[in-house]
Amino acid sequence: MSTPASPFADSTVAIVGVGLIGGSLAAAIKHRRVARRVIGVGRSTARLQSAKAARLIDDFSMDLAQAARESQLVIVCTPVDRIVADVRAAATAMQDGGLITDAGSVKGGICDSLCDLAHGPVTFVGSHPLAGSEKQGFEHASATLFEQKVCVITPPAGTLREPLERLHQFWQAVGMQTCELSPAEHDTTLARTSHLPHAVAAALAATLRPEHTRFAANGFRDTTRIAGGDPELWTAIFQQNSAALVDSISRMEEQLATLKQLLLRGEAASLQNWLQIAKTNRDQLDDRSP
Amino acid sequence: MSTPASPFADSTVAIVGVGLIGGSLAAAIKHRRVARRVIGVGRSTARLQSAKAARLIDDFSMDLAQAARESQLVIVCTPVDRIVADVRAAATAMQDGGLITDAGSVKGGICDSLCDLAHGPVTFVGSHPLAGSEKQGFEHASATLFEQKVCVITPPAGTLREPLERLHQFWQAVGMQTCELSPAEHDTTLARTSHLPHAVAAALAATLRPEHTRFAANGFRDTTRIAGGDPELWTAIFQQNSAALVDSISRMEEQLATLKQLLLRGEAASLQNWLQIAKTNRDQLDDRSP
Repeated sequence: MSTPASPFADSTVAIVGVGLIGGSLAAAIKHRRVARRVIGVGRSTARLQSAKAARLIDDFSMDLAQAARESQLVIVCTPVDRIVADVRAAATAMQDGGLITDAGSVKGGICDSLCDLAHGPVTFVGSHPLAGSEKQGFEHASATLFEQKVCVITPPAGTLREPLERLHQFWQAVGMQTCELSPAEHDTTLARTSHLPHAVAAALAATLRPEHTRFAANGFRDTTRIAGGDPELWTAIFQQNSAALVDSISRMEEQLATLKQLLLRGEAASLQNWLQIAKTNRDQLDDRSP
Repeated sequence: MSTPASPFADSTVAIVGVGLIGGSLAAAIKHRRVARRVIGVGRSTARLQSAKAARLIDDFSMDLAQAARESQLVIVCTPVDRIVADVRAAATAMQDGGLITDAGSVKGGICDSLCDLAHGPVTFVGSHPLAGSEKQGFEHASATLFEQKVCVITPPAGTLREPLERLHQFWQAVGMQTCELSPAEHDTTLARTSHLPHAVAAALAATLRPEHTRFAANGFRDTTRIAGGDPELWTAIFQQNSAALVDSISRMEEQLATLKQLLLRGEAASLQNWLQIAKTNRDQLDDRSP
């Protein structure tokens, strides 16, 4: 596959938060030569040294402002409740023409708080690369995590076109397909496709009794896998999108209520029809997993 | 790993229904030399010929009674709504001392209907090997599907000890860990650990709107994977265990209601605590998947 030209091929990029997402992004940038130099920014010297030893990053810094001054692109990959402060710190330090984005799973609150940065001279535009894992830490990083996945870019009204184009080109250079949604559209959509699955997986895991653990086979494991994600990260995501998530949970409750009625009525044809609709929905997802 | 001695090493085994489960069982029996000869029984000559060409079975027959007459063990791997009739047909044809089991996901109704066969001269004892996939057909069969998984054996009160021991030894020879539950205990347990996950995955898949498909990433895919299973098979399973499944769905609804309250109250600590309980439950499952 040919890599689209990167607008940052001769630039320095800072990645703030070198965990699974930040580490994978660093790996993809280096593997695909998307930037000349990658600086990792974090809070633990030991962790950053390990990430450098693993050749994920070229340099590292504990000082976000210093790294931002040297960079033409800053990607904030910290938990959603720290993104606004990290973007502000980067924006204050960066040189004019600098571009900042993030990788947060919720966009409304973050983009609203930062909408004054939509018009430069340093520009922030939100992003959400739809890739991840229940695993944590750069040790699980993969240069191919983002390949052929979708990245949602969420410009508020009035965002400058030139930096927005550069941001599309950056994510495409990393291997992703890009699209745009407003921050609000993003949050109602992802409530259904990402935050609801996490809520459902966690609720199902919460029903498990210790004496039944032995009898939980692959079906239970698959369906609850993402419940192994970091509770602190997901608390912040759920809280920032709570209204849309509550609405999505209501849609799930409606489906469970329908199923209970079908079971109580004992009509095989209606029950099979309901299961067929679910299967048809599932089958249309192009399943790239093994 | 040493294979336990098989009590059927010099015997002929008939497998009724050569799909994913029956085909994988045939492959494991041949790979581990658990029986001398495996006869596949089915309804399609073409399918059985293909299974023989794939070396899953040594011979095949469309005539269950004829295959049963030649076999010392018959394993009925047909859908749960056909198991009772297939076991009856085998029991009528088999020679004294013959053993019949099944691989059905629900046990109460089946074992109740067949409890007169608990005392010989041909003995039926129910089994449920906890292994499977949303995929169908012997083309997806794997000789290692059952390895280190749990097989629940469900003898009704008064089952003869000698054939029961042989059944344990058979599943262990195939690579499984065995345990016993009464048919009723099996059904209430599996309602929680297998039938509920399927219901939840299907309900979540049913909430997906066409315009959101593009934004369904790995989390949605993992959590709904088993909803790709055969609706006809699962209708029969759900109907045979509907009371216990309805009760399990109520437990799931309680967890979703709790989560909604936590979201509406906006208390981060309580929400994080709830997510931590779910994660702890999930983490204790020894996850053998990649």
